[in-house]
Amino acid sequence: MDRLCIGLIGGGFIGRVHATAFQMVKGFFADKVKDVTFKLIADKDDYSAQKAASRVGIDDWTDDWHTLVEDENINLVVVAVPNFLHKELALEIINQHKNIFCEKPLALNAEDAKQLYEAARKAGIVHGINFNYRKTPAVLLVKSWVKEGFLGSILSFRISFTQDWALDSDIPLDWHFQKKFAGSGVLGDLGSHAIDMARFLVGEIKEVTGRLSTHIEERPLVDFPAQGSPKTGKVDVDDICNVLLEFDNGAQGNMLASRVAQGRKNHFEFELYGTGGSVLFDWEQPNEVHFCSTSMRKGQNGFTKILVGGEDHPYGNTISPMAGMGTGFYEPFVIQLFEMIDAILNHRSMQPNFYDGWKANQAIDAIIESAKTHRWHSIA
Amino acid sequence: MDRLCIGLIGGGFIGRVHATAFQMVKGFFADKVKDVTFKLIADKDDYSAQKAASRVGIDDWTDDWHTLVEDENINLVVVAVPNFLHKELALEIINQHKNIFCEKPLALNAEDAKQLYEAARKAGIVHGINFNYRKTPAVLLVKSWVKEGFLGSILSFRISFTQDWALDSDIPLDWHFQKKFAGSGVLGDLGSHAIDMARFLVGEIKEVTGRLSTHIEERPLVDFPAQGSPKTGKVDVDDICNVLLEFDNGAQGNMLASRVAQGRKNHFEFELYGTGGSVLFDWEQPNEVHFCSTSMRKGQNGFTKILVGGEDHPYGNTISPMAGMGTGFYEPFVIQLFEMIDAILNHRSMQPNFYDGWKANQAIDAIIESAKTHRWHSIA
Amino acid sequence: MDRLCIGLIGGGFIGRVHATAFQMVKGFFADKVKDVTFKLIADKDDYSAQKAASRVGIDDWTDDWHTLVEDENINLVVVAVPNFLHKELALEIINQHKNIFCEKPLALNAEDAKQLYEAARKAGIVHGINFNYRKTPAVLLVKSWVKEGFLGSILSFRISFTQDWALDSDIPLDWHFQKKFAGSGVLGDLGSHAIDMARFLVGEIKEVTGRLSTHIEERPLVDFPAQGSPKTGKVDVDDICNVLLEFDNGAQGNMLASRVAQGRKNHFEFELYGTGGSVLFDWEQPNEVHFCSTSMRKGQNGFTKILVGGEDHPYGNTISPMAGMGTGFYEPFVIQLFEMIDAILNHRSMQPNFYDGWKANQAIDAIIESAKTHRWHSIA
Amino acid sequence: MDRLCIGLIGGGFIGRVHATAFQMVKGFFADKVKDVTFKLIADKDDYSAQKAASRVGIDDWTDDWHTLVEDENINLVVVAVPNFLHKELALEIINQHKNIFCEKPLALNAEDAKQLYEAARKAGIVHGINFNYRKTPAVLLVKSWVKEGFLGSILSFRISFTQDWALDSDIPLDWHFQKKFAGSGVLGDLGSHAIDMARFLVGEIKEVTGRLSTHIEERPLVDFPAQGSPKTGKVDVDDICNVLLEFDNGAQGNMLASRVAQGRKNHFEFELYGTGGSVLFDWEQPNEVHFCSTSMRKGQNGFTKILVGGEDHPYGNTISPMAGMGTGFYEPFVIQLFEMIDAILNHRSMQPNFYDGWKANQAIDAIIESAKTHRWHSIA
Repeated sequence: MDRLCIGLIGGGFIGRVHATAFQMVKGFFADKVKDVTFKLIADKDDYSAQKAASRVGIDDWTDDWHTLVEDENINLVVVAVPNFLHKELALEIINQHKNIFCEKPLALNAEDAKQLYEAARKAGIVHGINFNYRKTPAVLLVKSWVKEGFLGSILSFRISFTQDWALDSDIPLDWHFQKKFAGSGVLGDLGSHAIDMARFLVGEIKEVTGRLSTHIEERPLVDFPAQGSPKTGKVDVDDICNVLLEFDNGAQGNMLASRVAQGRKNHFEFELYGTGGSVLFDWEQPNEVHFCSTSMRKGQNGFTKILVGGEDHPYGNTISPMAGMGTGFYEPFVIQLFEMIDAILNHRSMQPNFYDGWKANQAIDAIIESAKTHRWHSIA
Repeated sequence: MDRLCIGLIGGGFIGRVHATAFQMVKGFFADKVKDVTFKLIADKDDYSAQKAASRVGIDDWTDDWHTLVEDENINLVVVAVPNFLHKELALEIINQHKNIFCEKPLALNAEDAKQLYEAARKAGIVHGINFNYRKTPAVLLVKSWVKEGFLGSILSFRISFTQDWALDSDIPLDWHFQKKFAGSGVLGDLGSHAIDMARFLVGEIKEVTGRLSTHIEERPLVDFPAQGSPKTGKVDVDDICNVLLEFDNGAQGNMLASRVAQGRKNHFEFELYGTGGSVLFDWEQPNEVHFCSTSMRKGQNGFTKILVGGEDHPYGNTISPMAGMGTGFYEPFVIQLFEMIDAILNHRSMQPNFYDGWKANQAIDAIIESAKTHRWHSIA
Repeated sequence: MDRLCIGLIGGGFIGRVHATAFQMVKGFFADKVKDVTFKLIADKDDYSAQKAASRVGIDDWTDDWHTLVEDENINLVVVAVPNFLHKELALEIINQHKNIFCEKPLALNAEDAKQLYEAARKAGIVHGINFNYRKTPAVLLVKSWVKEGFLGSILSFRISFTQDWALDSDIPLDWHFQKKFAGSGVLGDLGSHAIDMARFLVGEIKEVTGRLSTHIEERPLVDFPAQGSPKTGKVDVDDICNVLLEFDNGAQGNMLASRVAQGRKNHFEFELYGTGGSVLFDWEQPNEVHFCSTSMRKGQNGFTKILVGGEDHPYGNTISPMAGMGTGFYEPFVIQLFEMIDAILNHRSMQPNFYDGWKANQAIDAIIESAKTHRWHSIA
Repeated sequence: MDRLCIGLIGGGFIGRVHATAFQMVKGFFADKVKDVTFKLIADKDDYSAQKAASRVGIDDWTDDWHTLVEDENINLVVVAVPNFLHKELALEIINQHKNIFCEKPLALNAEDAKQLYEAARKAGIVHGINFNYRKTPAVLLVKSWVKEGFLGSILSFRISFTQDWALDSDIPLDWHFQKKFAGSGVLGDLGSHAIDMARFLVGEIKEVTGRLSTHIEERPLVDFPAQGSPKTGKVDVDDICNVLLEFDNGAQGNMLASRVAQGRKNHFEFELYGTGGSVLFDWEQPNEVHFCSTSMRKGQNGFTKILVGGEDHPYGNTISPMAGMGTGFYEPFVIQLFEMIDAILNHRSMQPNFYDGWKANQAIDAIIESAKTHRWHSIA
């Protein structure tokens, strides 16, 4: 395939991030994406599609996603809509033999996720999923150390992803707070990123046990309710989640996800302890990795703060040519979109993909089950 | 009681810390401890007792702890010996109607701990336990905020206590690595501090589930083995431990304890999230509390780094009269020893005491059980 | 003016940053830059121009900058070439009545800089200069606090900009190390950013005194020297610079610039102390501002770490819609290029501009003089 | 000399710190200070002496310092009174052939300081001065690296010492704010520590130039003024001070001292850049040194956070036997008092001593002069 035309479904915050990232791909990798274009934005509601299209500089938009999916010029569709819509859209896109890049979590549950994964695999298309944090240059650096054995065998892993926006009880009962639309609460939203990071850096998860709780149990209805009818509705998903993890390779871990953690805005941090060394990472300083090796000399042993960038580090020749320059939120989106395009143009598979999406949904389901049974659940 | 004479059993590292702390008590609280003396050091082996006595400036020492316990001038005994000796010594001390301050964990298991607690209570003596991290001025400040309701209801709590010394496989199979002497591994050693901190700041623990693992399973025997006999022995306790916590008040938490975490020297940190605000604490910066309130103004909401010290903070009139002066490892020992003396002189009870020791042992036992059954266990 | 066509002169590292930033402008502000195009890259050497053009996705390139400057379709020229070329190019661009955005420092000395400023002013074109750090959202937030009087009167200011690349003695004697090509050393390179930041946040500088030193005094010649001729040449500019500043408003300050500071990659930090509050900023964490107000309540007074982003903060509706998302190196370039375009399209002046460039060159000259005379020098 | 009896003059905050430190010396170094006693406290006003004596556990006190100085049992006098009293007291103590440990700055000016140094030298007594920050274990570690050449040649040095208490305009015109009593303002108070640290780590200072300013120029009189007379008086010393330093060895440096830096409580930080490596230190984390060596491997080069403590570090066998334990404000006082006692008992000289006090006073005087002449001044 020489030419590639990308269509986007979803004109909200995250949809615009993908569209902006595409412009940046042209900035960073111009010579490799010469013939790639970004064409259509679809959204359920025409005003939003038009506005979103305008904001990202695209002339062509539609309010009917079928139009986009059936457009024969389009061969990659980015799906950036609420969780409950993924299944229908993805199946149709796959059915049209188009390549697909889907927001996380892949589906409302593992069964649906597996169905999507198998459909994509059978169709032979390139499929990817938006676990963007994997693509942070600092995280890619850590991954390279893990692969080279530089950290030895991983013994333990701790990960947290916390935010505080849901402490505001005025935030209405939108799709994020309803199981039928979101599948789960903070577990699927932030926890899915943490689960994927655990798999990426440590390996497959064998068993989990978790605890879920909901701090704010009633929220205002989104639509103005009729006179006399209730003005609030019930939140039936979690906003705090603590989990223990057991990995196939014997490492153990723990995970916290919360959207009611006052003061945390987008706090994604992990600690990775191996027999050869340790790594600390915190998204609030996305350009830093803190690393301690068992081979450091006595009396000078401690965590070294490594500023990521430059030719010795991932994407140091393109995105971040100088240590300490600093990458932000968009760069990982740029990298993953570039890798997706590159995979399509060169007939390779994309990492992470729907398989990873399915594994994350499996872990989510097992955690939800374990919270009910008060037992560990294995991930089949 | 006007006069107080303190005897110490145990001349190792932590025994010397208690002895040094006593000198500091005289520095910080001289007018309140005029008639308090520190007299005897006992240890199992006379060289160590003599050496330890000399190092802390005490003329009087014995190699037989019975001598100390039976000395009628002594009315407070500090027990700083390995875990497996606590029970016998404590029962004898209580039997002699002497006040007692004991190292943690209180006993090898909850049953023994309960026996000690009940004996101490019935005897009417003052009993205390060395959960020294509670007495860090910064932690006392956090506790005062919790009590005043400044943080609202606690929603979640995360705590880690990690070190790296046990990664060294040359460290021999001393009592720390044997269940019959230590009761458990890092769980009882570092985890007991974390459990106590959880109870202190959040409240009673209702249920736990945990996972334990042992990285180095064989270690060199301490004593030179006879020719032909094995040179190493089996470690039968944990060196990594992850736990989920459910509290009586509905808060949930997670805890990590490890002594194989490369780069961590004495890393004791927690995050406390309430409906009114959050607190971060890290022992590597023992003079700082990071605090974020829900009442901070929009756009300026974030964690404030508060340097502890001065008249607005706990012990700011004695130990740390100026913010930013800095307290270290010894100050919490000074505070607890002062409070212990003060409790005896004023016929009050000490906090924390053998009850808290028992509760920690209960949690430890429940965690060990849960790691076997793969279920949550409640703390009776 | 409705249509805008941008030409770039200089295909090196910083030229490519400007080109990439333009792609990002289309991502973030698509609806406002619909009719803006980026057309030509010129460079002295055709291979570089072609390669640079290819890397940023531009078809049109030339190896003769006159072609670009004389192209009647182009109405904004970005000058990203070594310092010694600025004057000739800028005068020609201004002469052609084209708008201009120039790299810093504006010129080799204040006299030349003044000439450029006056030429630009008389020509009535829009002129801007690349003091990109000003445009960091976190810095814009600090500036807004200064303007609103939130920090009271500024009492003192400390700023450092340090890197370590010049510690490598193998780096050849390129234009950076020669006065005739660079004007000065780290003073003009990094110091000019620090001087501009001081003026931006505190106000006009009245007097300076400084000290310059050169650690590595000989470097390998860039071109292979003829047999028998010297292989190294003399560095005649500074690589460490310390300066005291006195401002018109009575504030005092100090500044450090160094490119031989081991471990510093791009470390740009400042402290601003006012009668109403203080601010700390460090480019290694470009998304954070640390703020302490005199109005904070007793016992809870300290620096609050504010994660920049979201609707309450500068460019929070476009570039960084969520606190904690994180911006990196490119975002400030995006903002300044957008503001430059916006100024041209709306017939406004750009901030900062050649006046600011001239003022920085004045400060540089005065510092160099003061280092010779060992006296303070005023900035005329 | 076998026996040593210490007398203290001054019962204020810093006097009590010295007295408490003595108790700690007995805790940490008991076997070495068996025959050392702490006997008398003198103060100008009897209530304070009595109270201070009581607070530090000393029975013997007097309100007449002559009594203490003439007491033949006393052979070390600690002088902890305001600056303007140092000269008279020190001369008398030296005259009595007693060893002396004096608060900083040594005198009101370099001339007086020189007189004290020469008197002490001629008398052959042991003399020491309270530059306590030198004795922080972390700083001693840095010093050992400098001595071993581990950091190569020092190129540049930056130091700040800032506090915020003097921003409060209600603080009265006590001796700190009057030249006749204090010699200078923040320059002598905090700046003297910074100057000493610069000399300790980098070497002798050759030349200086500085700028002084006073934010609050009038303060309430300490004593209730008579009716009709003025209620405030004039502050005639500095509260902000910026200085450039040139060292004998060619290194250059800059220094900031301020007591009107909102949010800073006791912020003493420095950066030391050598040809072999760099060091960062910040008293807010007194147990940490951040170190970057030029020999670190590519791509993993950065500052390593070293937690000080344990056998590989200074005083790791006594005061801080475990990395990460944490030392605070008192430990450096303990170390210097122990070293002072040790010097007396073993007939060695103490470091730092009155020579160092004199050199600091010379730098202070030169900075004050330079602020008047707007020129660099050499340190004779």
